Amino acid sequence: MIKVNTSPLSGMRDFLPNQALQRKEIISKIESIYQLHGFVPIETPSIERYGILTSKYGSDQSLIYNIANADPQGLRYDLTVPLARVMSEYQNELPKFFKRYQIQPVWRADRPQKGRCREFYQCDIDFVGTTSNNADISILECISDVLSSFNLKNYTIRVNDRRIWSLMISAFNIRQSWYMCDYGGSYADQEKETILYFDKNSALEDDDINSNYYPYDKQSIINTKNFIKKSFEENDFNAALDYLASKATNKNHIDGINSLRYILSVFEGINPNIKMDLSLARGLDYYTGTIFEIAVDGMNISIGGGGRYDNLVKSIDPKLDKPGVGCSIGLDRLMLALEDQGLLPKIENQIDMMVIALDQDYIEYSMHVAKQFRRIGYKTEIYPEIVKMKKSMQYASEMKTRYVCIIGENEISENKITIKNMETSVQNEWDFNDLIMMSNRTDLE
Amino acid sequence: MIKVNTSPLSGMRDFLPNQALQRKEIISKIESIYQLHGFVPIETPSIERYGILTSKYGSDQSLIYNIANADPQGLRYDLTVPLARVMSEYQNELPKFFKRYQIQPVWRADRPQKGRCREFYQCDIDFVGTTSNNADISILECISDVLSSFNLKNYTIRVNDRRIWSLMISAFNIRQSWYMCDYGGSYADQEKETILYFDKNSALEDDDINSNYYPYDKQSIINTKNFIKKSFEENDFNAALDYLASKATNKNHIDGINSLRYILSVFEGINPNIKMDLSLARGLDYYTGTIFEIAVDGMNISIGGGGRYDNLVKSIDPKLDKPGVGCSIGLDRLMLALEDQGLLPKIENQIDMMVIALDQDYIEYSMHVAKQFRRIGYKTEIYPEIVKMKKSMQYASEMKTRYVCIIGENEISENKITIKNMETSVQNEWDFNDLIMMSNRTDLE
Repeated sequence: MIKVNTSPLSGMRDFLPNQALQRKEIISKIESIYQLHGFVPIETPSIERYGILTSKYGSDQSLIYNIANADPQGLRYDLTVPLARVMSEYQNELPKFFKRYQIQPVWRADRPQKGRCREFYQCDIDFVGTTSNNADISILECISDVLSSFNLKNYTIRVNDRRIWSLMISAFNIRQSWYMCDYGGSYADQEKETILYFDKNSALEDDDINSNYYPYDKQSIINTKNFIKKSFEENDFNAALDYLASKATNKNHIDGINSLRYILSVFEGINPNIKMDLSLARGLDYYTGTIFEIAVDGMNISIGGGGRYDNLVKSIDPKLDKPGVGCSIGLDRLMLALEDQGLLPKIENQIDMMVIALDQDYIEYSMHVAKQFRRIGYKTEIYPEIVKMKKSMQYASEMKTRYVCIIGENEISENKITIKNMETSVQNEWDFNDLIMMSNRTDLE
Repeated sequence: MIKVNTSPLSGMRDFLPNQALQRKEIISKIESIYQLHGFVPIETPSIERYGILTSKYGSDQSLIYNIANADPQGLRYDLTVPLARVMSEYQNELPKFFKRYQIQPVWRADRPQKGRCREFYQCDIDFVGTTSNNADISILECISDVLSSFNLKNYTIRVNDRRIWSLMISAFNIRQSWYMCDYGGSYADQEKETILYFDKNSALEDDDINSNYYPYDKQSIINTKNFIKKSFEENDFNAALDYLASKATNKNHIDGINSLRYILSVFEGINPNIKMDLSLARGLDYYTGTIFEIAVDGMNISIGGGGRYDNLVKSIDPKLDKPGVGCSIGLDRLMLALEDQGLLPKIENQIDMMVIALDQDYIEYSMHVAKQFRRIGYKTEIYPEIVKMKKSMQYASEMKTRYVCIIGENEISENKITIKNMETSVQNEWDFNDLIMMSNRTDLE
């Protein structure tokens, strides 16, 4: 018989106690802030019908973990698609405005790299049931409070609007250059291609532009890049949006301008971390309005992001009009950022009390004693074997146990216990009945 | 475009907010008791190599959810196998005695029925690193504390020992009848078959025995059944074990007797819920000593169980000797039992404060106000749309919001807020600066 491979699968991780406790603490903090903002939890199955998983436009099907046994099924790759399914399935049970949070793992058959695992936790909030931008603001405010609660520094919530991309493409005449070539595809596809081009090539120098990608007119692209750059440097969203407003040609453009201007004006002066960034592009297939992303200085991946998806629920249930806006924080990426800034909570996985019985016959008495310690809130265990005291004391010391309680012949015959503070080595005798009466855990010495 | 099927897959469940909160509360209570007993958490990936999943003898491979994309992989079907893998992989990092808990979902491609889902949470504790029965006692004590913490009544932790089954088969000469027929299989297989026979047919009348199953001698079986029944009725484990001890023919038998006697004697008089039940059989392929199961009166399925598996880690890492004992509580089954006894925690998913702005221009002020309420611990949300007050108040009332805070023209001009208690309808004006200074959440009226 040979030893099997016991490492976790590539892109998946084991969390030993200190890490597991750290993750629990961070999740618990996120959860408490989500709740404070009026979000309530749901949980959904890990496995979904394939038809549900692929209902979100633009989901990359190659990333889905498929289940082999049954009807086409796969592991969920995000928490937004299950939310859309839940919105449809329980539409008569859910309130008009559904503010839900969901913190569960998702799976993607992706190439693993730093900050990108195949199994990872997302911490989502969504506000469904209104097109009001006040919902977008609620999401941004809540996410901002989560980041503040960890004292995270040097981060920006970059905000843009999907509709402003359409406006910029029109304003800088990039459309014209499409028509000049035989590019093909629908207008929406072409628009998406253009945005992706900007997103991917935002760092290119002007001289490298033309040779790099064919169908765009070089000067249009340079003009757009320069405008975005200038709007960023001037840090005056009103000026940039005024200019774009003057170029708007349809209601969609105007709505995008008004929406982004309103959101930024509410946070202006209150929250300097929330900033317009017209270069931001994400979720082009399903976001319809506001888009945003959390960037941390020195990290080349975002720790979360989201946007408004007024048609997502419709993609699952065409008759159900449930506009919404949401944000997802990646737990691992948030933890990477906290680690970089030295902000991860220190975990002291410490046993308060180890009860050591010097004879097998004293185990029953030890159990009574341990029960009392637990009653006053001490994490208490009984050393499981009967060994020389030196050995068990050494183990208690290695485990950084705070106190040790020794149960020997004297203790049993006199109904006493002996407690040793492992840090100070101070040792005290207690009457067992006094221990029963005691309830203040700071009183032990 | 047609509506896709939005129900969760068969055997899987969505948990809407009240249920999700209820589950979280129960998990949190179990977790706190596990920690109080010195257990520490680990988390492992949902997906494991197929070779790991099938390393536990007797695992039913047809129950494993297979992943289609990659090397043979599947979803974990329990939390014991991942623990064995972790024990091997991190053997140099883990303490001599590893007391771990793990509360995560598992998946089984089983036929769904009440209390048996395809995705469900297990709440496991295991004590690895010693053969001492004091570890078995620690597990039983901890599980017992968990059940008490929920005030669960009318339950029994039925305890037996795998080795006593071997002894009973030998004592009542059931072996003889094997040799009388051409049954085949190894001795261990035959023994297992016999135990399974008892387990499945424990309710059969004597007259129905012979015709029902071939290779056993009718009288041996009746004698065994009668002995088990008598031991149960007399409720005197010492007498029953004394009789069996007189029939012991090898060290394994003696060890089984001593172990079970010791465990029962420690709990005798202290914990009437822990009882010997010689009819109990479970995990015949991997349990080596103590076995136990939590039965609740009126439920035909156990809510948890476990045992000692001194060779489990060896099945993954032949050179690693890590004996252990553990217990798994099924979260759903525990919840079924609590529901039956009316003990499920009542969840009041209540918003403390809904801030209602009467004009879009008041949203910013409303955000300042909401921030103060959150600072004093109130779950606070801002009504997202600007509508007639009657409409927003009605929504707040439907949502059972405790207080509503109205922000209108007067409030803005005088830097005030108006708070209405939705239960008493009492309405009070506050100075916004007083709210900022206030910190006691019970002082609001």
